[in-house]
Amino acid sequence: MDLAPRLDLALPAGPLTLALVDAFSESGHERPLADAVEAALSGVPHLEVARDGDSVVARTSLGRAERVVIAGHLDTVPAAGNHPGRIEGGLVHGLGSCDMKGGVAVALRLAAHIAEPVRDVTYVFYDNEEVEEARNGLKRIAERHPDWLAADFAVLMEPSNAGVEGGCQGTLRVEVRTAGRRAHSARSWLGDNAIHGAADVLDRLRAYEPRRPVVEGLEYREGLNAVWIAGGVAGNVIPDECVVTVNYRFAPDRTVSEAEAHLADVFGGYDVRTVDSGEGARPGLDRPAAQAFVSAVGGQPMPKYGWTDVARFSALGIPAVNFGPGDPALAHTREEHVPIAQIESCEERMRVWLSPAGQPRHRG
Amino acid sequence: MDLAPRLDLALPAGPLTLALVDAFSESGHERPLADAVEAALSGVPHLEVARDGDSVVARTSLGRAERVVIAGHLDTVPAAGNHPGRIEGGLVHGLGSCDMKGGVAVALRLAAHIAEPVRDVTYVFYDNEEVEEARNGLKRIAERHPDWLAADFAVLMEPSNAGVEGGCQGTLRVEVRTAGRRAHSARSWLGDNAIHGAADVLDRLRAYEPRRPVVEGLEYREGLNAVWIAGGVAGNVIPDECVVTVNYRFAPDRTVSEAEAHLADVFGGYDVRTVDSGEGARPGLDRPAAQAFVSAVGGQPMPKYGWTDVARFSALGIPAVNFGPGDPALAHTREEHVPIAQIESCEERMRVWLSPAGQPRHRG
Repeated sequence: MDLAPRLDLALPAGPLTLALVDAFSESGHERPLADAVEAALSGVPHLEVARDGDSVVARTSLGRAERVVIAGHLDTVPAAGNHPGRIEGGLVHGLGSCDMKGGVAVALRLAAHIAEPVRDVTYVFYDNEEVEEARNGLKRIAERHPDWLAADFAVLMEPSNAGVEGGCQGTLRVEVRTAGRRAHSARSWLGDNAIHGAADVLDRLRAYEPRRPVVEGLEYREGLNAVWIAGGVAGNVIPDECVVTVNYRFAPDRTVSEAEAHLADVFGGYDVRTVDSGEGARPGLDRPAAQAFVSAVGGQPMPKYGWTDVARFSALGIPAVNFGPGDPALAHTREEHVPIAQIESCEERMRVWLSPAGQPRHRG
Repeated sequence: MDLAPRLDLALPAGPLTLALVDAFSESGHERPLADAVEAALSGVPHLEVARDGDSVVARTSLGRAERVVIAGHLDTVPAAGNHPGRIEGGLVHGLGSCDMKGGVAVALRLAAHIAEPVRDVTYVFYDNEEVEEARNGLKRIAERHPDWLAADFAVLMEPSNAGVEGGCQGTLRVEVRTAGRRAHSARSWLGDNAIHGAADVLDRLRAYEPRRPVVEGLEYREGLNAVWIAGGVAGNVIPDECVVTVNYRFAPDRTVSEAEAHLADVFGGYDVRTVDSGEGARPGLDRPAAQAFVSAVGGQPMPKYGWTDVARFSALGIPAVNFGPGDPALAHTREEHVPIAQIESCEERMRVWLSPAGQPRHRG
């Protein structure tokens, strides 16, 4: 397949991001890129490097009072005619540029060039974030090497338009089933049409008014949507079942259990089965480590609507935020790109956070 | 595969039906049975036998004033744990017993044993009725050998509970599409959910009141039903399309064109596309040949709700009725069966129709 690329961490942020984009790493095919990351970081004297599968972890060990994680995934969704990438108009275009090789470039440059951060840093570059949870590299590390992730705070370099996004919403997918009775469609009065019955389920969805709760100062925005519908037996048969798959995105003031109870209520009278779920994560911006980060990088924290691996850190008891270059709305699109200015801005602001000059004066 | 069975046309109706059931003939696999039918009828001195593919046509040529067709299909739907069959409690059980090997047994016995019918008879045993129309054996014969089907009247031995069912309803399948705009389900307010939009289509179906028009004295019963619904892109995407496949069964006072215009009206505002259709057939019971048949076999004619090949005869200008043993509601079911008494009754009544003793006295 691909030869392992060589990564030159002396490259500026834009060209380094392009090199990462060009290092094809669709989920399940991260090995060449993981090899390159491992090789590049192993040459950095102030880092200890460890490896698990196609994930690479590098850390400083300066005995600082605080340790933080800076994490990003190496994988991308499948290519869509957008690989390799290119630089044009101040933007890096191409597969994974926004989600999230711009953020990975920031983390790699910080890892290589900040030899004496004021906080010890654990850099995590992991595999298989874009696929089913069972394959997620961060999940695997948390299970096999929980000590590698021990920290007071974590920054996940997911695209957030270079702003701090706190917490994340939870997600719950359920199947809502309507039942009927089969009959030949030429004698439909002998049957009971389960697809017609689904009209009521869809009517409830249309009438639903999603909440916009404020959690720890951030306003979240929920959503309840059919993402699949399927029913039918044959072109001449009254169908006896219709399944509406509903995705509920819920604010982090609710647990998955509470979300399930809510949907049981919304779809009362129907067979409702959970397909999959992910807990949300509270913003945790009240924690000192989070406050120090927000104060160092500046800007107004925003809520994160989508589910991200910050929830995994949250479940480990580690407050975490999303902070990375790129517009999350461009993730997974053919046109994805990331502004070089945002990559540079993220790097510069995190450099301030990790450097003595960037610390609050009263601690200086 | 199966060895060609030998058919003994001297068998009584019940055992002959069982022999036909046991001669496996799922659509596309009729050859052994067609061979056996051809062989058995070729041994009958008063018949001329012709063959096209897996269809067999046998005819008397007595120079009668009138010629009638007696037709049945040899194929069955796929087995459902109901092959071979058995006789139990006065019923022949098994694959195709009801649809329509009981009727084929009647036709075979009439062909073999009525040497001098008062009407010339063309017996048609054809293939591939249970599959897509392009493969239909009767359609193929009508195209290749239209002279083989020339007649004043046709009896299709489809199960009708041994009663005369006149005409048949037409069928029209359309796809009704709703459109929306994709978005990530975590930011659903940026999208427009096409599955939610389908609620309106389903509401129109639920509210629809089907007609029950009387056509030539028979009351038909229409139906408008969703038979498929499909929508969805991914578990985290607001879907931009939903397709509801609707089957309209309409009385034979409407043409397919009129049915299409009606559905364009019912689903006004949506993209409505025809998938397939079949014209209905008027009962034609006012025609002398049909009246003679009804008067000979007795009973009260009923409408046929389902589409059958009588519509094909109707399109050829030949009035046709369904008349065969078995409950059409059992067709295509695992439990299908046919009462031997109904098979015998159909045979006996058709024998009367074809025999001098059965003719109206004023003609005797």
